[in-house]
Amino acid sequence: MSTHTDRLHALRAQLFAQGLDGFVVPLTDEHMSEYVGAYAQRLAWLTGFGGSAGTAVVLADEAAIFTDGRYTTQVREQVSAADWAYVGVPESSVAAWLGEHAETGQRIGYDPWLHTRADVRALAAALADSGATLVAVDANPVDAIWTDRPAPSPARLTVQPDELAGLGTAAKRADIADWLTARGADAVVLSALDSIAWALNLRGADVDHTPVALSYAIVHADGTADLFVAREKLDDAVRQHLGNAVRVHEKTDFVANASNLAGKRVVADPERAVAAIFDALEAHGATVVPLRDPVVLAKALKNDAEIAGHRAAQVRDGAALTRFLRWVEIECPKGGQTELSAAAKLLEYRRATGALLDTSFATISATGAHGAIPHYHVTEGSNAPIERGQLFLIDSGGQYADGTTDVTRVMPIGDPTPEMRDRFTRVLKGHIALATATFPDGTLGGHLDAFARRPLWEAGLDYPHGTGHGIGAYLSVHEGPQRIAAPNYPGGAAMEPIRARMMLSNEPGYYKPGGYGIRIENLVLVESRDIPGADRPMLGFETLTLAPIERTMIDPALLTAPEVTWIDRYHARVAEIIGPRLVGEDRAWLEEKCSPLGS
Amino acid sequence: MSTHTDRLHALRAQLFAQGLDGFVVPLTDEHMSEYVGAYAQRLAWLTGFGGSAGTAVVLADEAAIFTDGRYTTQVREQVSAADWAYVGVPESSVAAWLGEHAETGQRIGYDPWLHTRADVRALAAALADSGATLVAVDANPVDAIWTDRPAPSPARLTVQPDELAGLGTAAKRADIADWLTARGADAVVLSALDSIAWALNLRGADVDHTPVALSYAIVHADGTADLFVAREKLDDAVRQHLGNAVRVHEKTDFVANASNLAGKRVVADPERAVAAIFDALEAHGATVVPLRDPVVLAKALKNDAEIAGHRAAQVRDGAALTRFLRWVEIECPKGGQTELSAAAKLLEYRRATGALLDTSFATISATGAHGAIPHYHVTEGSNAPIERGQLFLIDSGGQYADGTTDVTRVMPIGDPTPEMRDRFTRVLKGHIALATATFPDGTLGGHLDAFARRPLWEAGLDYPHGTGHGIGAYLSVHEGPQRIAAPNYPGGAAMEPIRARMMLSNEPGYYKPGGYGIRIENLVLVESRDIPGADRPMLGFETLTLAPIERTMIDPALLTAPEVTWIDRYHARVAEIIGPRLVGEDRAWLEEKCSPLGS
Repeated sequence: MSTHTDRLHALRAQLFAQGLDGFVVPLTDEHMSEYVGAYAQRLAWLTGFGGSAGTAVVLADEAAIFTDGRYTTQVREQVSAADWAYVGVPESSVAAWLGEHAETGQRIGYDPWLHTRADVRALAAALADSGATLVAVDANPVDAIWTDRPAPSPARLTVQPDELAGLGTAAKRADIADWLTARGADAVVLSALDSIAWALNLRGADVDHTPVALSYAIVHADGTADLFVAREKLDDAVRQHLGNAVRVHEKTDFVANASNLAGKRVVADPERAVAAIFDALEAHGATVVPLRDPVVLAKALKNDAEIAGHRAAQVRDGAALTRFLRWVEIECPKGGQTELSAAAKLLEYRRATGALLDTSFATISATGAHGAIPHYHVTEGSNAPIERGQLFLIDSGGQYADGTTDVTRVMPIGDPTPEMRDRFTRVLKGHIALATATFPDGTLGGHLDAFARRPLWEAGLDYPHGTGHGIGAYLSVHEGPQRIAAPNYPGGAAMEPIRARMMLSNEPGYYKPGGYGIRIENLVLVESRDIPGADRPMLGFETLTLAPIERTMIDPALLTAPEVTWIDRYHARVAEIIGPRLVGEDRAWLEEKCSPLGS
Repeated sequence: MSTHTDRLHALRAQLFAQGLDGFVVPLTDEHMSEYVGAYAQRLAWLTGFGGSAGTAVVLADEAAIFTDGRYTTQVREQVSAADWAYVGVPESSVAAWLGEHAETGQRIGYDPWLHTRADVRALAAALADSGATLVAVDANPVDAIWTDRPAPSPARLTVQPDELAGLGTAAKRADIADWLTARGADAVVLSALDSIAWALNLRGADVDHTPVALSYAIVHADGTADLFVAREKLDDAVRQHLGNAVRVHEKTDFVANASNLAGKRVVADPERAVAAIFDALEAHGATVVPLRDPVVLAKALKNDAEIAGHRAAQVRDGAALTRFLRWVEIECPKGGQTELSAAAKLLEYRRATGALLDTSFATISATGAHGAIPHYHVTEGSNAPIERGQLFLIDSGGQYADGTTDVTRVMPIGDPTPEMRDRFTRVLKGHIALATATFPDGTLGGHLDAFARRPLWEAGLDYPHGTGHGIGAYLSVHEGPQRIAAPNYPGGAAMEPIRARMMLSNEPGYYKPGGYGIRIENLVLVESRDIPGADRPMLGFETLTLAPIERTMIDPALLTAPEVTWIDRYHARVAEIIGPRLVGEDRAWLEEKCSPLGS
């Protein structure tokens, strides 16, 4: 088994063999996915870095790894300082660093299947300033030396039934066709895996936690489509579902097939389609129309069937979570439980619903100081015992055929301190302030974000992450285009107008480094609000997630009367809807947890 | 006296003579000023349009005028539909329209002294798509036919004394020099008139309401400067103030003098320096470093002397405004007063302070339905009688040597309706929510904005403008870079981090078209907040403006206890500070107006 130092040396030899002086290794795949399959984990294989975002650059005599503030500590623990320089972003950037470190005449390689065109242009401009050249490689040099690289998953495709999807694929493709026609375009390339899954009412199992299949699709202005996917993934049911209007091709034929688009106006999404797709379209004589993938917004606006399915999933998921929270309260103070054992117990309760298809992301089971790491991932190495005096934070979700869930709750192990209760109550006040907001149709997520922070700001505190993300319908747990976050949240998603039928999380938090973490997360549905006397269309949120918010963590002295009313009404609704799904002591426990504050 | 139709015909003849097929006439000057001097009012002269923002495009057989939503009605009243097409922005744009209307081979002219380079590039790209060419003119064709064009103002320069400026010009230039050195630059071109005034501690009188002089300046990395200004504006005091380290040149020598910058790295601000400046620097062999004018942020962070001066100006201005508000309450219900007579009365009270140098903008004196036009400008033609049953809105400010003020108050003429009181109270609640906000150092203005809107949003209402703008120290009443507004406010100013020592307005409003307008505007100072237990530097606002907020407009039933406390404390401070500046019945009136709510 090779060391990471061996791998770095092997890569340098391979670069030399390919006539390159350097190479950029991002943590992305050919679909700009948030979660990247094992086959595409080149950055982790090369460097040992296990975070979810980062880039490496290898030159002949130096190498650097670029990570953001979330991973400042982790990258130093996992990646050898002898081999790699640590560079923080956004203070620096790959382009800025290469501009300083590449030398005149050097050839720096990149894999055009792993970068957007904007990335490529920024890199090329920075290198041009220093007299170096950016070179697209035909074959990724990491793959040449990664001899035991996992094969892409062979998992089968499944059909998402119309009664859950709410709209058949033919109708969805007809809508896309109308959208294309209105823009004078002939076709659109879909490369985002969840866009393809949504448009064709297909689901897959090629990526952990996200039910999508590695594929590309082209939807045409006549409503037909081409799907590029490993044929072994298709069974008769899928073939029958797709019918004649969706032509199936091997995934590897995608580029060659672009020759059929010669002379056509083809939409490709500059943020979601990689540079190689733009290159292939242009090389084959298509005119690229750079617009956002039309599925992105269509998919965000949930239809009635998706909303109904989601509600059903929430009831099921909330009952399982409630049983787990009771287990935490009773079992964890006794000692002997760990973050891993707790996560396993929650999975057991979710599986007991009989409907769980997958978790929607790697469960964040974090006790004590681990809770203060917002994106903590428990491993055998990090697994900590759950002990009295700690707060235990559980952020988790399920994939069900009718919906995707994501919920965070915090439980004290024994008695919480006054400070813990103060902080929890401030987070709760922020959560309520957002949950009860009313705002004009089209208000930006970045405009709403501060409501959730104000009670923390009043104590000189804040949390280092966004407040809300979109979520898919048995699809990605993080789904764009909308987000509630500071207006300068990376990627611009907080500048997306909020519209009725979007779903979002509402998840303010507080993190005391070395101490504890708090986050209260419910999913919400954006709905129209009919306000007497209103002079414009207004929106508000309906909270969808149903699970008790731990009452012993709440300091009622910090709450206003309307806040107490909100909590009591929320808990009454949880008891009413979840209660009938529970029996015996679980039900009695829920009802006690959901009784009015002060009672 | 020529008609606007005559002028359009004359311009077309002139374009023909200059070999052009069209020309763009923006409402800007060579300094990208917010308020443009009479000599540069080419758009108004050509079209008759009197708004503060707009652009005209003249082609051989058609012409169009581009205005935003504020001027949809006004442009149709003032500009002939027979000669001009009305085009709304941002729905369309000059570039988009020219792209559609210019024809292959046509030459469309622009004056490079009136456009930023980004503007020019957008126009050129749009024209290139249609096969036309954008051509920079040496002489503006409007000026050739505008035979009675006003000469630039000959007003004298004055010295802003160090005790008011807080920092001598040598020290300011030394700071700019340090900033240049840190960026490896040799010089910076200052073209924004208030930047030049601030850096050199000079004031002028070339622009209405804003004490600046038409000029350019270059500050060098050695701390010396070149000032380009009509020499007739300088007297001995100014010459002595500037000393040897500031070399004075005729304004007309600015371009020729750029030859001294050959081979140097020269900072120019892409948002504030016009294309002609970039062209001149590059033509003379300088390397342009496109960065924001360093004075913009330095000027926004008020020093102790500027803050002390501003406080003194507020006391003086608040006393004058208080006397005026009492006059409104007593005199206006009797009948016989108008918007113009009220504005004149307020000016009389401000002049009576003995310190008024100018109003800081054209007073918005708006009664009844005129109040619903946020940027209403009263003229002899529009002047309305102030009548019982109306709300009277007064938005005004003074220029004093020690500070610039800007304040809005609303007075009922007789008894307000319950709806008026409801709306006023919601605006007040929003004003208080922003005034009492605590937030981390560097929070964006766009992140804070919604606090001021939430009480209106809860009733399905909003206001169609930003919530707060920066303000100068005896300089521009609207001063960047910061602004509190929706995150997508035009120009990006709402994405500027808020820092201690910035000053801003806090001015939510409500406008009922055809009915009435409400706005409550105070200026605030951003200050550091020391919060026990805080884990980061925090900021808050101190309210600077001192004048009663009309208590009969407030519905206490809509207020929380903390809101009542805020109002009572604010009024107690107004009475304590302003009271001693008033005598007799004015003082008694103020004290009654400032007594606690409910008393």
